[in-house]
Amino acid sequence: MRISQLSAESGVPIPTIKYYLREGLLPAGEQTAATRAEYGPSHLRRLRLIRALLEVGRLPVAAIRRVIEAVEDEDLPVHTMLGTAHYALGAAPEPDAGDDDLREARQTVDELIAGLGWTVTPLAPTRDELARALVTLKRLGMPAGQADLLPYAASAMRLAHDHEMSRIPFDGPREVAVETLVICTVLYGRVLDVFRRLAQESESARILGAT
Amino acid sequence: MRISQLSAESGVPIPTIKYYLREGLLPAGEQTAATRAEYGPSHLRRLRLIRALLEVGRLPVAAIRRVIEAVEDEDLPVHTMLGTAHYALGAAPEPDAGDDDLREARQTVDELIAGLGWTVTPLAPTRDELARALVTLKRLGMPAGQADLLPYAASAMRLAHDHEMSRIPFDGPREVAVETLVICTVLYGRVLDVFRRLAQESESARILGAT
Repeated sequence: MRISQLSAESGVPIPTIKYYLREGLLPAGEQTAATRAEYGPSHLRRLRLIRALLEVGRLPVAAIRRVIEAVEDEDLPVHTMLGTAHYALGAAPEPDAGDDDLREARQTVDELIAGLGWTVTPLAPTRDELARALVTLKRLGMPAGQADLLPYAASAMRLAHDHEMSRIPFDGPREVAVETLVICTVLYGRVLDVFRRLAQESESARILGAT
Repeated sequence: MRISQLSAESGVPIPTIKYYLREGLLPAGEQTAATRAEYGPSHLRRLRLIRALLEVGRLPVAAIRRVIEAVEDEDLPVHTMLGTAHYALGAAPEPDAGDDDLREARQTVDELIAGLGWTVTPLAPTRDELARALVTLKRLGMPAGQADLLPYAASAMRLAHDHEMSRIPFDGPREVAVETLVICTVLYGRVLDVFRRLAQESESARILGAT
């Protein structure tokens, strides 16, 4: 299809498509004449992925580029490719945590993950991200020991195991697996976050006898 | 205590304290001389609350003002006061959802909450926030029916009931109840979010046989 049809089918405006082409996020079409290129289903899939990373994941272009490099590197196992999306979705490092506190929290995280028997690479930045959250909790006087965290880990694993990862089409095009992972992680995460506030309101009503 | 000591005890710089005084977020101290005011423990509590709303909740000043008005209005029941914090923590409305889609999603949300037997005010903006997330999920082809959502509701209620709401000191100063709610909601929410990505990585490793 021509670029105009690619735009119509994807809902992405032509200038935006040209920007993605210049940035190397979208591979060039097949040149069929000096001013004419042909695009196919793989370009449509790529555009869907870019939109998901941009609009659902709210990732900056540099992070999108890293994810797409992982998608394009066919030698990279699917598991590692998905990891780039997981890590890109994490919060940017916060520099304020004290070194000793962070080291201690990081040890709690590592022991917790080992105790749970989860397979998470030792270098995963998600470990640091969790450690930083624990430092903030402790600094504010909230409980952040293993016993306080285990219910959250259990809920997360129940959702991931029973519902979320079965939605990922692991054996289809690499783009589709990453896109589904990002949408699942971000949007069901938003659903869970709203449900927590709704449940807390309901519990507050129950405890305080409000109706 | 003098403003300098209030600053030292709270860790909030004097110019920032003066800004909060001007904005009406912090009540004036007791004037003991023309250029001298006395501050007490209630000012310290208020500063802690402002910092929690600002740094943990990342709320804009206008939203902080609404929460603090609810804290100061002693006629307002604690349950309603906590509601202002819950609603302030929600995402800003997204205008892109189609009217029909949003109405349908809102009906799903209302039926779901009724079916769960939760006590949530009919006007709670959290209902709309959840409905908007469902519209986005559907638009992206992800399942968003009652059966798909119930596991998230169940996890949220388990955490709220067993762990979170028991941490709120309902019978202490109003500031402390709101501060604890905001910290609990935001920070354990962050913990849960990271645990989901860790659990998904572990499940991905299991399914794909990576180690």
